[in-house]
Amino acid sequence: MGAGIMGVAVHPGQAGSVHVTKLAQPRPGPNEALVRVRRVGVCGTDTEIINAKFGTAPAGAQELVLGHEVLGEVEAVGEGVTTLRPGDLVTATVRRPDGCPTCRAGQIDMCLWGNYTERGILGAHGYMAQSFTENVRYLVPIPVELEPVGVLVEPLSVVEKAYRQAVLIQRRLAVWTPETAVVLGAGPIGILGTLLLRQQGLQVYTLARTPAPNPAAEIVERAGAHYVSTRQISFANLRDSLPNVDLIFESTGASALAFEGMEALGINGVLMLLSITGGDAEGLVPTDAINRSLVLGNKIVAGSVNAATEDFARGVKRLGQFEHEWPGLAVSLITDRLRGFDDAHRIAEAAGRGVKTVLEFADA
Amino acid sequence: MGAGIMGVAVHPGQAGSVHVTKLAQPRPGPNEALVRVRRVGVCGTDTEIINAKFGTAPAGAQELVLGHEVLGEVEAVGEGVTTLRPGDLVTATVRRPDGCPTCRAGQIDMCLWGNYTERGILGAHGYMAQSFTENVRYLVPIPVELEPVGVLVEPLSVVEKAYRQAVLIQRRLAVWTPETAVVLGAGPIGILGTLLLRQQGLQVYTLARTPAPNPAAEIVERAGAHYVSTRQISFANLRDSLPNVDLIFESTGASALAFEGMEALGINGVLMLLSITGGDAEGLVPTDAINRSLVLGNKIVAGSVNAATEDFARGVKRLGQFEHEWPGLAVSLITDRLRGFDDAHRIAEAAGRGVKTVLEFADA
Repeated sequence: MGAGIMGVAVHPGQAGSVHVTKLAQPRPGPNEALVRVRRVGVCGTDTEIINAKFGTAPAGAQELVLGHEVLGEVEAVGEGVTTLRPGDLVTATVRRPDGCPTCRAGQIDMCLWGNYTERGILGAHGYMAQSFTENVRYLVPIPVELEPVGVLVEPLSVVEKAYRQAVLIQRRLAVWTPETAVVLGAGPIGILGTLLLRQQGLQVYTLARTPAPNPAAEIVERAGAHYVSTRQISFANLRDSLPNVDLIFESTGASALAFEGMEALGINGVLMLLSITGGDAEGLVPTDAINRSLVLGNKIVAGSVNAATEDFARGVKRLGQFEHEWPGLAVSLITDRLRGFDDAHRIAEAAGRGVKTVLEFADA
Repeated sequence: MGAGIMGVAVHPGQAGSVHVTKLAQPRPGPNEALVRVRRVGVCGTDTEIINAKFGTAPAGAQELVLGHEVLGEVEAVGEGVTTLRPGDLVTATVRRPDGCPTCRAGQIDMCLWGNYTERGILGAHGYMAQSFTENVRYLVPIPVELEPVGVLVEPLSVVEKAYRQAVLIQRRLAVWTPETAVVLGAGPIGILGTLLLRQQGLQVYTLARTPAPNPAAEIVERAGAHYVSTRQISFANLRDSLPNVDLIFESTGASALAFEGMEALGINGVLMLLSITGGDAEGLVPTDAINRSLVLGNKIVAGSVNAATEDFARGVKRLGQFEHEWPGLAVSLITDRLRGFDDAHRIAEAAGRGVKTVLEFADA
């Protein structure tokens, strides 16, 4: 190995094993770009990997480089690349296909076999490093004016996919004009979901535990949504006061809420489940009432994970719309900034603090 | 009132109040047909109405004429009717619109306001009478060769709608080639669902409590599906032995199965819920595991009730296909025949006996 670069890695399955590691200097092959990393977002999945609940190293490797929410700058391109140039800002998608019929049709996010890899999560190194290479088909350009918020494209893509899926599913209806939405949870996914649904013109009720004032509540209210603390109004009481709930995003990470969401959903409504709940919690559920309500109201509950490249592109466009409607609002989701390698050991602290923590690699 | 006709009615809310009643002789108005009833099927909803758990009389009336699964013969037509002639065989749809946007767009089965009426169930008289009138838009022609099975079109329409909705929902996928289905329950809906899915070429596993041999098991096996008694193999054990379960129909009437279905559903699969569970049962549910499975597998749970006119038309066509593939099989669902008015008091006994009970009005 010649000159190397630094990265932030864990030993999967070994809790608290975050460390700075040395990686081979990446060089772009044909159709690839070399991307210099500017910043990387930290999310709940990273925390789960750090806590050894999730995550696998690449085949043959002992460690996994973390990070799947990236903003970077193209430093060089390999042979055959015509769509990107050095200096371009990009983010990167996360999942790589396994050759199943759905992946082959271009829907990697709906992979049927489940043998995909995910950069920074499952069997492939992530983006918490000085630089990385990637096939340009998995890189998504970010306009320079969105540099401060481009690191949010990946979490936004998850919400874009869920919303796009809801719309695709609702093509079953001759008429669907959603007016009222509930977002469960006010973490980054819940807030970005709130902004998306507000931008689409819906009345949005965003539920979280912590009473206002707090940074999440402030962002939600600035976008014209209603922030509701479940310590002040129960979900059951809130739903009784609402008109027909057309759409629910569940993003709390608490599976009980998925089932409360089924009870709150309105006629012809769609409940999109976005939380990967890693535990084995059980709960006493009113099975007759939920089933009857789903049947008589032709209601739908749909799980949604990951995102397609088109959702990343939609997310980029949407961030521009957010800036237009609420200048400076999206960037206020970034409530904590850590210094790339120096603060790597503090990533695990990110959970539960502020809204979104990012690692800055600009000067790394 | 001049000459009258006889009908079978209940006093809604009064258990065991089935009685023969006298009704005014119906006369077809403009765009209506007068239909002489040949036979009417009895279903679980009728039993619930007889047990006073469901059902409302028409506005201003004290009683509700039962029956929503009908085969009849057009006796006369009113002014403006060009699509039907005396002698034509017909069935009738059940639900009538309330003027909501979805009903106005022609999707009465997806009614948004919930103020619909349903003949024989909610606020409108049913078809258990010597004759009835109806706007021809709600009448569906039955070819004469399907006379013996035409009374099955209504329950089949419920399955047709669920299958059509599943296909509409799955247009979210670039590729959906379902191969394996599970049908929960082997009542008329479960059996008709089994036949439909077999006719579509799927491998079908139909679960019910009662071990074979029994009439339901015989029909299921003759259609090439696998009849599984849960007294011999548990649902959990069965699902572990199956490939990816692409589609589930839940038609047991037991809400716990809806949640077991969520656990059994495969990646990108759809669970269609068809049972209107009237009670208030609760159950201990593995909420984390179900939620996680739905999310990571992009899975869908969808309620489905009632049927559109197009589903009745599809049902008629499908019965013809059933006759072609399995001559005489569909009619074997009719395991009990009662004599119209003489046996009216025995309708309630229909539940739990054989597969489908019909009342014969041919000579009434």
